[in-house]
Amino acid sequence: MTTIDMKEELYKAQILVEALPYIQKFNRKIIVVKYGGSAMVDEDLKRKVIQDVALLKLVGFKPIIVHGGGKEISSWVKKSGMEPKFINGLRVTDEPTMEIAEMVLNKVNKSLVSLLEELGIKACGISGKDGGMLRVDKKLSGGEDIGFVGDIKSVDTTLIHSLLKDDFLPVICPIGFGDDHHAYNINADDAACAIARAVGAEKLAFLTDIEGVYRDFNDKDSLISELSTTEAKDLLASGTIGGGMLPKLNNCIDAVENGVSRVHILDGRIPHCLLLEIFTNKGIGTAILSEEAEKFYNADIVC
Amino acid sequence: MTTIDMKEELYKAQILVEALPYIQKFNRKIIVVKYGGSAMVDEDLKRKVIQDVALLKLVGFKPIIVHGGGKEISSWVKKSGMEPKFINGLRVTDEPTMEIAEMVLNKVNKSLVSLLEELGIKACGISGKDGGMLRVDKKLSGGEDIGFVGDIKSVDTTLIHSLLKDDFLPVICPIGFGDDHHAYNINADDAACAIARAVGAEKLAFLTDIEGVYRDFNDKDSLISELSTTEAKDLLASGTIGGGMLPKLNNCIDAVENGVSRVHILDGRIPHCLLLEIFTNKGIGTAILSEEAEKFYNADIVC
Amino acid sequence: MTTIDMKEELYKAQILVEALPYIQKFNRKIIVVKYGGSAMVDEDLKRKVIQDVALLKLVGFKPIIVHGGGKEISSWVKKSGMEPKFINGLRVTDEPTMEIAEMVLNKVNKSLVSLLEELGIKACGISGKDGGMLRVDKKLSGGEDIGFVGDIKSVDTTLIHSLLKDDFLPVICPIGFGDDHHAYNINADDAACAIARAVGAEKLAFLTDIEGVYRDFNDKDSLISELSTTEAKDLLASGTIGGGMLPKLNNCIDAVENGVSRVHILDGRIPHCLLLEIFTNKGIGTAILSEEAEKFYNADIVC
Amino acid sequence: MTTIDMKEELYKAQILVEALPYIQKFNRKIIVVKYGGSAMVDEDLKRKVIQDVALLKLVGFKPIIVHGGGKEISSWVKKSGMEPKFINGLRVTDEPTMEIAEMVLNKVNKSLVSLLEELGIKACGISGKDGGMLRVDKKLSGGEDIGFVGDIKSVDTTLIHSLLKDDFLPVICPIGFGDDHHAYNINADDAACAIARAVGAEKLAFLTDIEGVYRDFNDKDSLISELSTTEAKDLLASGTIGGGMLPKLNNCIDAVENGVSRVHILDGRIPHCLLLEIFTNKGIGTAILSEEAEKFYNADIVC
Amino acid sequence: MTTIDMKEELYKAQILVEALPYIQKFNRKIIVVKYGGSAMVDEDLKRKVIQDVALLKLVGFKPIIVHGGGKEISSWVKKSGMEPKFINGLRVTDEPTMEIAEMVLNKVNKSLVSLLEELGIKACGISGKDGGMLRVDKKLSGGEDIGFVGDIKSVDTTLIHSLLKDDFLPVICPIGFGDDHHAYNINADDAACAIARAVGAEKLAFLTDIEGVYRDFNDKDSLISELSTTEAKDLLASGTIGGGMLPKLNNCIDAVENGVSRVHILDGRIPHCLLLEIFTNKGIGTAILSEEAEKFYNADIVC
Amino acid sequence: MTTIDMKEELYKAQILVEALPYIQKFNRKIIVVKYGGSAMVDEDLKRKVIQDVALLKLVGFKPIIVHGGGKEISSWVKKSGMEPKFINGLRVTDEPTMEIAEMVLNKVNKSLVSLLEELGIKACGISGKDGGMLRVDKKLSGGEDIGFVGDIKSVDTTLIHSLLKDDFLPVICPIGFGDDHHAYNINADDAACAIARAVGAEKLAFLTDIEGVYRDFNDKDSLISELSTTEAKDLLASGTIGGGMLPKLNNCIDAVENGVSRVHILDGRIPHCLLLEIFTNKGIGTAILSEEAEKFYNADIVC
Repeated sequence: MTTIDMKEELYKAQILVEALPYIQKFNRKIIVVKYGGSAMVDEDLKRKVIQDVALLKLVGFKPIIVHGGGKEISSWVKKSGMEPKFINGLRVTDEPTMEIAEMVLNKVNKSLVSLLEELGIKACGISGKDGGMLRVDKKLSGGEDIGFVGDIKSVDTTLIHSLLKDDFLPVICPIGFGDDHHAYNINADDAACAIARAVGAEKLAFLTDIEGVYRDFNDKDSLISELSTTEAKDLLASGTIGGGMLPKLNNCIDAVENGVSRVHILDGRIPHCLLLEIFTNKGIGTAILSEEAEKFYNADIVC
Repeated sequence: MTTIDMKEELYKAQILVEALPYIQKFNRKIIVVKYGGSAMVDEDLKRKVIQDVALLKLVGFKPIIVHGGGKEISSWVKKSGMEPKFINGLRVTDEPTMEIAEMVLNKVNKSLVSLLEELGIKACGISGKDGGMLRVDKKLSGGEDIGFVGDIKSVDTTLIHSLLKDDFLPVICPIGFGDDHHAYNINADDAACAIARAVGAEKLAFLTDIEGVYRDFNDKDSLISELSTTEAKDLLASGTIGGGMLPKLNNCIDAVENGVSRVHILDGRIPHCLLLEIFTNKGIGTAILSEEAEKFYNADIVC
Repeated sequence: MTTIDMKEELYKAQILVEALPYIQKFNRKIIVVKYGGSAMVDEDLKRKVIQDVALLKLVGFKPIIVHGGGKEISSWVKKSGMEPKFINGLRVTDEPTMEIAEMVLNKVNKSLVSLLEELGIKACGISGKDGGMLRVDKKLSGGEDIGFVGDIKSVDTTLIHSLLKDDFLPVICPIGFGDDHHAYNINADDAACAIARAVGAEKLAFLTDIEGVYRDFNDKDSLISELSTTEAKDLLASGTIGGGMLPKLNNCIDAVENGVSRVHILDGRIPHCLLLEIFTNKGIGTAILSEEAEKFYNADIVC
Repeated sequence: MTTIDMKEELYKAQILVEALPYIQKFNRKIIVVKYGGSAMVDEDLKRKVIQDVALLKLVGFKPIIVHGGGKEISSWVKKSGMEPKFINGLRVTDEPTMEIAEMVLNKVNKSLVSLLEELGIKACGISGKDGGMLRVDKKLSGGEDIGFVGDIKSVDTTLIHSLLKDDFLPVICPIGFGDDHHAYNINADDAACAIARAVGAEKLAFLTDIEGVYRDFNDKDSLISELSTTEAKDLLASGTIGGGMLPKLNNCIDAVENGVSRVHILDGRIPHCLLLEIFTNKGIGTAILSEEAEKFYNADIVC
Repeated sequence: MTTIDMKEELYKAQILVEALPYIQKFNRKIIVVKYGGSAMVDEDLKRKVIQDVALLKLVGFKPIIVHGGGKEISSWVKKSGMEPKFINGLRVTDEPTMEIAEMVLNKVNKSLVSLLEELGIKACGISGKDGGMLRVDKKLSGGEDIGFVGDIKSVDTTLIHSLLKDDFLPVICPIGFGDDHHAYNINADDAACAIARAVGAEKLAFLTDIEGVYRDFNDKDSLISELSTTEAKDLLASGTIGGGMLPKLNNCIDAVENGVSRVHILDGRIPHCLLLEIFTNKGIGTAILSEEAEKFYNADIVC
Repeated sequence: MTTIDMKEELYKAQILVEALPYIQKFNRKIIVVKYGGSAMVDEDLKRKVIQDVALLKLVGFKPIIVHGGGKEISSWVKKSGMEPKFINGLRVTDEPTMEIAEMVLNKVNKSLVSLLEELGIKACGISGKDGGMLRVDKKLSGGEDIGFVGDIKSVDTTLIHSLLKDDFLPVICPIGFGDDHHAYNINADDAACAIARAVGAEKLAFLTDIEGVYRDFNDKDSLISELSTTEAKDLLASGTIGGGMLPKLNNCIDAVENGVSRVHILDGRIPHCLLLEIFTNKGIGTAILSEEAEKFYNADIVC
C-alpha cells in the first residue's frame, strides 16, 4: 500500500470508529422508516435508501419499512381505463380502484424485498392483512363516502414481533381489514405512525420531498432542526403550517406522545439521508422529540 | 330438545368421534395444499376449501397453501392491452407480463389470507421472494427463451418454519429469484412439490379439475384409488397418460421419492374434498404412496 | 363412491366444518371434567365419555379428568367383611376403609388411563398426594368424627401444569394429605371444583345422573338451561333445591365466582353429552355462568 | 456451646465435608433403586430407605424408585377369599388376582409418595401404564399359561424424563400394557433393570434380603465385593449360583452390558445401606461393574 | 466390615440424614460469604472455608464469595518501597497504591478460584469492574481526599446472574468504577452487603476474627445469638458497640432491611464455621434477622 | 449544513455503506485477537485497538481478546528486587516470579476491561484458571526445568461460550492449571491459538511488532500478503524464517489446520490495523489461509 492509500484507509477506519457511539445508542432498537416520495421513484435514491436500511439492520438495529405507492397506483388506474378521483386530497377508492391499489402496493412491496435480498438481508413483505395486523374503521371525508379508505383502529403486532425475533426485516404496505372483512386503503404516514407506536419504536423517520419544517415556509433559512411536542403544537396553532405538512406534523406529535422517542422528517432527496441523520451530529431535516429524548441526546453522544 | 333433535345431535357427535383416529394420525404434521383450478374460481367452492384448511389447522395439523393464478393473469394481461402468449403450454413471460403476474398472484394471495382471517385463522401471505425462499434457474422451453420463467433450484425453509412455529398459516405464491435477482414465475405444481419436499411434509394434496388418474382415460370406471411410485412409473411408461396429468404425475413421484409419504390428486370440484380425503376411509381421487405409507395407512386406522 | 354415499360424506364434512367455531373458542383452554355416576358404571357410556375427552384433547383443548369411585368402594369394603357406614351422607372412613378407598380409587384411576391409552392419548393417573397437590383439613360432620375425610385447604398445581405442558392428560383421584401426613378421602365434586379454580379452567363439567337443575323438581318442563350466579343464589335461597344438588350448586357458584367462566351440570346418561354440550348451540343440562361468560357466549358463536 | 459439644459438631462437619467427592461424582446422575424385601416390611427400615433416597435427591442426584409388593398381594388375595397360586415361582395371575395386584401395588406406590412428601420431596407415583411407559408380551412359564404376567418389550421414557426435568421423583410400580390393552403384572427386578437401561442410569441398586453374592454360598467369608460382567458370567457358568440370585445376577449383567455403569446388590436389612454404599469407600454388598466403571471408580475418589 | 466399622459408618449416615432439612431449606438460595480476616491467612482454615463453600454449592445452594485482601496489600505496598497510610482507618489510596491493591486483590481472587477448582467446583473470579458490576462515588473521609476509595452507588447484577445460571461460582474482589472510569478500592464488607442486597440473597455471612456481638464487650458470657434489626439499632444507640463492629453492624441492619433474610457474624477462626452455622441448630456467632426470618427459622426445622 | 460539509458527510455515509459486505461476512462469527507488543505499550495505539474491538462487537462479531504482558512482568520482577532470567527465550518462572506474573497479567487484564467499559462494551476479564479453562503440562526447555511454564493440553470452553451467549466480551490472560493445581504461565500466542481452535473461531489475528512475513527478510518489498498452509510449510522448510516468527508461523499453520479459516499477522504499530484488515480489500500484514477460505474470500466480496 502506498502512503497516500494508507492515509485514506486510516481516514476510513476513523469514520467507522466515529460511528461507534451511534451504533451503540440504537443497538437492538426498533426504527420505523416511512418510505415514500422521490426516494421511491428515483432508482439511485431507492438503492441508497435500501443500502442505509440494510446497514442499520446489520449493525444491530431493527428497522421496519412502511411504504406507500401513491403515484404508481394512479398510473395503473389510468392504464385500466379509469380516472383517478380525489376528494379533499383523499383518493376515492371504489372496488376496482381498491383492487388495483392492492396489486400495486404488493408489487412495490415485493420489489423492496428484492432489493434487500440482493444486499443479503432477509426481508419479508407483508400487508396489514397478514396476521390480522391492521384493523380499520371506514373513513369519511367531510361526510362524503370515499369508498374503501380506512382509519386504523387497532394494530396486532404479533406477526411483526415474530419476524423481528427470527431476524427478518418486515416490509409493510398499508392495507387493512374493515369489520366487513374487506380490504381498505390506509394513508402510509398514518400506518407508519400507528405501527411505530404499537411496537414501541425508538425512532420513526419519514422520508419526504421537503427539507423539513420551516418556521416561515417562504424563508429557506428558517428550517427548524428540533422541536419539542409543545413547540410543534404551538407552531400548528400559529397557523403557519399548511398543506401535506399539517397531517404529518400531527402524526409526529401523536407518535412522540405515545412512546416513540424521536420522530424525524427527512429530505428523502438527499442520498443516504437516513445514515446522515443517525450517524452524525449534524442533524438534517427536522426532529420532533420528547423532553426525555432531548436530554438523552445531548448527554449521550460525546465525540 | 326434542327426541328427533337429540337423535340428530347424537349422530353429529358420532361423526366427530369417528374423526378421532384421523386427527390423531396427522397431528402436528405438515400438509401442503396446492390450490388451483375451479376450486379457485367458484366462490362457494373457494369458501369450502378455506373452511377445510381452517379446520385442519384448528385440529392440530400444519397446513401450507401454495396457489397459482393462471386464468386471472391472462385476463389482466389482456386488460393492459397485451396478448397472452404460450409456447409448449408455458406462458411467455416478458418484463411487463411478469410485472402483471406478480401483481395478480399477490392479489390472489392476500384474498386467501382474508378468507382465512374471516374464519379466525392467523395467516401470512408470502411469495418465494420473501426470506429468499425460492431460488430459480431460467427455464428454457425446447431451446426457446420464454422470459422470466424459472425452475426451482433451492428452497430456504427458514421463513416457513418461523411462521409455522409462531402458529401462522403460510399462504405462498410461486414467484422466485433468479441469480440476476429478477423475479421469475414458477409453475405452482412445481412450487408445491418443491416446498412439500423441503419442509418434509407428511402429505401433499393437489386440488385439480379432474377426478383423479384413470388407467384408461376414456373409461370412467378405471379411476385409480392408490398407486405406488413403481406403479405410477409403469403407468407413465405405458404412454396412456397425457396432457396436464403427465407433469403432475411426475411431480407426485418426485415428492414421494423425496420423503413426502402421501401425495393426492383430488377433484377440487367436489365440495370439502380435502376433508373427505383426510377424514374418511372412502378415498376420493388418486393417492400416490410410498410403500411405507401404504402399510402404515392400513395398519393404523381401524374404526 | 355412489351418489348416496357421497351425499352422506358431504353431510359429515359439513358437520366437521360446523365444529370450527367451537374448536376455536376453547383452543388451548383447560376443561375439568368431573366424572362419576352412571357414566362410570355403564361400560358403553364409559367408553363414550373417554372418546369425548380424547377428542377434546386432540382438537386442542386441555382436559383434566377428576373422578370418584363411590359405589365400588362400598362393594370392596363389603368384600373385606366390613359394613359401609355413613353419617349425614358422608362415608365414615376409618383406617381400613381409607386403605380400601385408596386402593379402589387408584384402580379406577388406572383403568381410565388404560382406556385413553387405547385411543392413543398419553394420560397420567395421579392422586392428590402426588406432587403434594391436595392438602386438607379434617372434616367434621355435625361435630362428629367421621375419620379420614378431608376439606381441601390448598391446591399445588405444579404437577398438573407440568403434565399439561408435556402434553399428558391428567387423570386425578380425590385423595389428599392432612397435616398429619395421613391420606384423606375428599368428595370428588369438591376436588374437581378446587382444581378447576386453581388451574384457572375455562370450563368445569359435572357428569351427573340427573338432567340438570329444575326450577320445580316435580315439573320436568322446568329444566333450567342457564343460570347466572345471582340467579343460582336466589334459587338456593328459595329453598326449592335439595338433596345432592345443593352442595353441587354451591360448588358451581364457588367455581364461577373464582374465575371459572362456565360450569355445567350434564346428564352423564346421555351418550357423548360432553361433545353435545361443547359442539352444539342446543345446550343440554344446566350451565352456571359468570356475567362475562354469558355475553361472550352470545357474541362469539354465530353459525 | 461447650467444648465437647463443639468437638462433636466439628466431627459432624468433617463427615459432611468427606461426602464432597461422592456428591460430586454422581451429581445429576440417574440412580434407579429397586425397592423390595424386608426393607419394605419393617417400618423403621422403610423410613431410613426413604430418608436415603430423599438425601440423594437433595444433594443433586436423580433417584427413581421401582418397587414390588409381593407379600402384600398374597395377603389381599387371601382376604378376598382366593388362594395364591404359583408355577415355577411365578404368580398365576388370573383376572381377579390382577385386579388385586394392581390395587395393592398402587397402594404401596402412594404410601412411598407419602413418606417422601413428609420429608419435603415432591414425588409422583405412577405405574407402567401411565404415559404408555411399559409395553409387555405375555409371559409363558414352561409352556403353561400363567395369566396376566408380562415380559417388557419396550419402555417409553417420555413421562419419566418429563417428571425428572420438572424435579419430581418418580415412584414406579411394575404394571404394563399388553397388546390387548390389558394390565399385566411384571417382575419388579425386571422392571427396574429395563427402566435403568432405558433412561441410561448411572447406577442401579437392588435392595435385597441377602448380604450379596457369595463365591460359595455356605462360606460366609466368601462374599464378593466387586464383579466384572465377565466374572459374573463365569460364576453363573460354574453353577454355584442358585435360587432367586440367578435371575437377579442375569439382570445385573444385562443392565451393565446395556449402559448402566454400576449395579449393586445391597443388603436392605442394613439401615441406610444406600447411603453407606454411595458415601463410603467401604463397599457393602456386591457390585457388578463395567470395565470402565472399575477404572473410573478407583481413579476418581481419593480422600 | 467389622462391627465397629459398621457402627461408625451408620453414625456417619445418620449425620448425613440429619442434614436433610437444612439442605432443603436453602435449596437454590443465594448465600453471600464475606471472606476475610484470619480465615484468609491460615492455610488450614482457608482450605476448610473453601471446602464448606464447595459443599454448599454441591448440595444445591448458590454461594457467592466476596473477599478482601487487606494485610497482603500493605505488605506489597511496603515491598514496592512505599509506606501504607491510613486516615480514620481508611487506606489512603493514591495511584500507585491503587495499582498494587488491584494486583493483590486479583491474585487473592484467583488463588480462591484455584482452591475451588481443586475440589472440582467451577468458579469464576471477577472484580466489580467486570460486566460493569460496581459503580462508585469517590469517598471522602472527614472532608479529606483519601484517593481512589469508593462508595458503591449501583450494582449491575447481570454478570453474576449469568454465571450463577450457568453453574459457575462467582468469586468477587471489591474494586469498582468511578464516573472517571478509574478503578476505586471498596471496603469488602460494604461490597458484600451491596451485592447480597442486589441479588436478593437469602443469607449473608461475614467471616470475622471475633466470636460475635457482645452485649458487654468485656463480659465473654454476653455473646448475643440472635438480634432483630430493632434490637440491633437499640444496641447501636446504647453506645456500647465500637471499633470495627460498628460499621459491620450497620451493614447487617442495612442488608436485613433490604431483603436479605439473615445476616451472620461468624467467627472465622473456628474451622468449618459456615457448615456449623448452616447445618446445626446450635448457632455460632450472632445472627441479625428480619422478624419474618425469625418466625420461619423456628417453624421450619424440627429434627 | 454547508455544501462542503454535506459533501464530506456524504463521503462518510459512503464509507459506512462500503463496510456492508464485510459486516455481513463475519456476522456472529468469533474472532480471536492476540493482543501484545507495541500496541499494548503505546497509550494511543492501545485505545485504537480497543476501539476496533468495540466496533467489531457492536456490528455483530464476537471478538475475544487474549493478551500477554511480557515487558511489564519484567519491570515488576525488578521492582521486587529480583532479576528476570530467560533460557532459550523462555522466562524462568520460579514461585515468586509466577506470583508477580499472575498479578501483572491480571492488572493488564482488568485495564483492558476498563477501556472497553468506557466505550460501553460489557467485558469480563478472566484467566485460564477461571472455569477450569486451560489445563497445562509442565514445559521443559531443552531438558532444563524453567519452573511454572506450561504447554496447554486441554481447553474447556464452557465459560467462554457462557460469556459470549450472554453478550459479554471475554478478555483472557494466559495462565493455566497444572495437574498439581499450581498456576502456570503460558505463552500468549500459544494460548490465543489454542483458544481459537477450541471455540472454532472464524479468524485469529496476531497484533505484532512486524509488518508481516517476508519471503526475504532483508528485502522489504518481499512482504507476503497471503499464504496457504502448504506455502507456509515450504517457507519454514526453506529455512529463511527465523526468530520469533518461527513459532508464530507454526501457530498459524496449526490454527488453520484445526478449523480456523483465516489467521492474520498484523502490524500492531499501524493504528486501527484490525479494522483495516477486516473492512478493506487492501490487505495489510500476512494472512495464512485454508484453501477453502481463499476461495470463499475471493468469491464473496465484490464491491
